[in-house]
Amino acid sequence: MSKLISRTQKAYLAGFLDGDGSVYVQLKPNKTYKYGFQIAMYIVLYQSQKSQKSFEKVCSLIGFGHMRVRKDGILEYIIGTQEGIEKFIKIVDQYVIMKKPQVQLLKKIVALKNQISSQKDFRELAKLIDTFRGLNYSKKRKVHILTP
Amino acid sequence: MSKLISRTQKAYLAGFLDGDGSVYVQLKPNKTYKYGFQIAMYIVLYQSQKSQKSFEKVCSLIGFGHMRVRKDGILEYIIGTQEGIEKFIKIVDQYVIMKKPQVQLLKKIVALKNQISSQKDFRELAKLIDTFRGLNYSKKRKVHILTP
Repeated sequence: MSKLISRTQKAYLAGFLDGDGSVYVQLKPNKTYKYGFQIAMYIVLYQSQKSQKSFEKVCSLIGFGHMRVRKDGILEYIIGTQEGIEKFIKIVDQYVIMKKPQVQLLKKIVALKNQISSQKDFRELAKLIDTFRGLNYSKKRKVHILTP
Repeated sequence: MSKLISRTQKAYLAGFLDGDGSVYVQLKPNKTYKYGFQIAMYIVLYQSQKSQKSFEKVCSLIGFGHMRVRKDGILEYIIGTQEGIEKFIKIVDQYVIMKKPQVQLLKKIVALKNQISSQKDFRELAKLIDTFRGLNYSKKRKVHILTP
């Protein structure tokens, strides 16, 4: 579900992400993956369930994420596929202000991920993923990064 | 401090307001005012103090509000003057999605406020202000509306 989206809609989404969104990446131990870890990336927009209808309007501008209701009544619109992440980065890249470092770093990580051909490459990537720790410091939303 | 601001910056700010902002109006009992109440209007953007520097970048696009640090470490960028409110409404009016009803209602309230010439007019306005209750229902951020 890809959409034509205007410059002002892109800028709006960048503002929304900066206001109440998060960008993170984690290494999840998983033996079925070649290097023993899955690289899970997420871009999430949050909002109270009480504003669900109008939040859905915002999310429909994107279209390639999915909605989840947390037990505490917070809605999460989650973009969790690599394809979705790459698309969303293209949308907000030019307009994001506060989360610019995270978006830039995620862009780098995606590019590196696409080029991995050895354990050494993977270790480099893992190091880069580890630097996310310094960017996301919210107490409220924990960053789960596992160092291999 | 008025600024030239681009369409995408306006849309960004509308997105930020929808993500983590609030719009509210309250009647404060105050005998020094002609009809016994002050009409206090606020548009507020929120962010963690930990992101102060980058949040200041966002707020500098606006320029006519003021920053306050709450005891819980949340920064509030408050636009609390009528002039500021009117300016900010003009900025986001075309782009806001989730808080469109609040912005529209505040616009109406400002217009009516400028035309008050009797106690009856004021009562009409107070009724309108009261309808804000139905729009802002956040548990986290209390809406203080006093009915005269």
